[in-house]
Amino acid sequence: MTTLACPLPHVETEAVCMGHGSGGRLSAELFRSVFQPAFGNPILDQLGDQALLHIDGAHLAFTTDSYVVRPLFFRGGNIGSLAVHGTINDLAVGGATPLYLSAAFILEEGLPLTTLRQVVATMEHCAAQAGVQIVTGDTKVVEKGSCDGLFINTAGIGVVPSGVRLAPNQVRPNDAVLLSGPIGDHGIAILAEREGLSFASEVASDTAPLHTLCADVLATGADIRCMRDPTRGGVASTCNEIAQSSRVGIVLEDAAIPVRPAVRGACELLGLDPLYIANEGRMVVFVAAADTDRVLAAMRAHPLGAEARRIGTATENNPGLVTMRTAFGTERIVDLLTSDPLPRIC
Amino acid sequence: MTTLACPLPHVETEAVCMGHGSGGRLSAELFRSVFQPAFGNPILDQLGDQALLHIDGAHLAFTTDSYVVRPLFFRGGNIGSLAVHGTINDLAVGGATPLYLSAAFILEEGLPLTTLRQVVATMEHCAAQAGVQIVTGDTKVVEKGSCDGLFINTAGIGVVPSGVRLAPNQVRPNDAVLLSGPIGDHGIAILAEREGLSFASEVASDTAPLHTLCADVLATGADIRCMRDPTRGGVASTCNEIAQSSRVGIVLEDAAIPVRPAVRGACELLGLDPLYIANEGRMVVFVAAADTDRVLAAMRAHPLGAEARRIGTATENNPGLVTMRTAFGTERIVDLLTSDPLPRIC
Repeated sequence: MTTLACPLPHVETEAVCMGHGSGGRLSAELFRSVFQPAFGNPILDQLGDQALLHIDGAHLAFTTDSYVVRPLFFRGGNIGSLAVHGTINDLAVGGATPLYLSAAFILEEGLPLTTLRQVVATMEHCAAQAGVQIVTGDTKVVEKGSCDGLFINTAGIGVVPSGVRLAPNQVRPNDAVLLSGPIGDHGIAILAEREGLSFASEVASDTAPLHTLCADVLATGADIRCMRDPTRGGVASTCNEIAQSSRVGIVLEDAAIPVRPAVRGACELLGLDPLYIANEGRMVVFVAAADTDRVLAAMRAHPLGAEARRIGTATENNPGLVTMRTAFGTERIVDLLTSDPLPRIC
Repeated sequence: MTTLACPLPHVETEAVCMGHGSGGRLSAELFRSVFQPAFGNPILDQLGDQALLHIDGAHLAFTTDSYVVRPLFFRGGNIGSLAVHGTINDLAVGGATPLYLSAAFILEEGLPLTTLRQVVATMEHCAAQAGVQIVTGDTKVVEKGSCDGLFINTAGIGVVPSGVRLAPNQVRPNDAVLLSGPIGDHGIAILAEREGLSFASEVASDTAPLHTLCADVLATGADIRCMRDPTRGGVASTCNEIAQSSRVGIVLEDAAIPVRPAVRGACELLGLDPLYIANEGRMVVFVAAADTDRVLAAMRAHPLGAEARRIGTATENNPGLVTMRTAFGTERIVDLLTSDPLPRIC
């Protein structure tokens, strides 16, 4: 793995910095140096987006996420839709059927109640549409200036159907890497809203619940190794995690990766790589090569997978490393970023 | 009920205020006017500290709480012990055996990593001592000034043994109200730390996991109607909630309620009523009168219930109202406070 990797200076810091929340190298470092040594246990160490629990004969998935997106409202959604979809998706990509959510609010003194009502109405709408129930909650209030309007945490419980065994360490050489649709919409929609970028104002977040798409993929009976929703750190970070967990190389095909023209344009103007931009309604599927076509067919038959494509292949070469074959025939390393060009994206 | 209640002016506000997080009247108002109309469903409407779920034959309890206590460290504990104990306790008072926790962190840029490490070590210590596992998590970072150091959310899953049926609407006239130990320690310990009150510096938080005490109470086979841990809003707010849910009156005996001298002294100096001060390791048990003695005996046999006392009785009179019989033989109303004298206590 290290043969191709650039020798980066060792990043060390004695205080939390924005990069610790990026989903990139510093996030992984924080997990490995602070959380894993303390909390490490066989369930947490699986490093899934969700914990798999066996309780009284039931096979459950359990996950949590806090949402601190800025601004609270953006084209295509708001913090409430992210809080519901994001946690549904973390369950769904583990193969679970999402059932129940908790919702915990940290409110800043002075937040208009109309804002809270709008967010709560969106959460209920998204939950009802996805067939999940919000069953328990909590509200804390902090003084003006002690938080940024509104933070939400949702935790979720789902049921894992028997026979489903997905894990980030199951990808093997020659497996296909599939992507459900165009990337970068969510991150650019947030950035456009935050910075008032008129040239990207038409881009809407892709925030959506992926559980029925995931179920359709599993229903093919294909040999699915692992599914992921490429949120913070984008498709690049997701592929890096999987490459490292499964000790395979991953070669992506630049020309195969769908990016909307408005997103590509915004990224070019801002010097961003869409491969690192967060998505909130896209999924990456790692599947045995022989099953590629039927899984792609199932994805394309679903509204959220209509533009599904095969974007790459797992390889024996360069285990742990992700590379990109460009349209010009060259190959470049797709490294895990140290930090994140777009903080507070979810 | 209204016969004895003072006619308070109607409290309405169009922005979030500190009282909305108090556990008092404004919190209830926020729940009723914003969250319940949107999220309302049969599980949420039970208004327990935890949701009771039936999944694939398993009987589970599910709960969540965010922790925003200020300061992060105080005599007897820190935000990490609260985050573990608080969620364990919300499961425990529902009769559940706590099994798994999630832990989600919102970190402020610049937070010293040593602070985070200390909190995480405390969480692991508390979880291990209580026999629960932290199995999934999340970390977000926000810019300096966008949160107050460190906020933690924990959600918890527990198993409810068959036959356990506790609910806030099951208390009946003549039931006994039991309290596990002295009240107000946690709130006064926080206040002492926050305000540098030397006269209260000896008071340590009572933060503790109550699940084994709860299990011992249930193991008596007594007719337990409901258990609660009196956190925000203290014993007064807990009793008000139960009185309203069960449509009974509750008469408390002032002389029976244990308050440590240092806590009583601090409350007198500061004009606070210990009955409204938060506890993080105390429980209130509502039990059929005939079973009082054996439940008290079981509580006293447990280290966290050594000072357990009967503090009151449910009555047919004044349903929904809590009153206090003073040492002088007079009776006063113990109303739900509109707001909270001690914000950010957990």
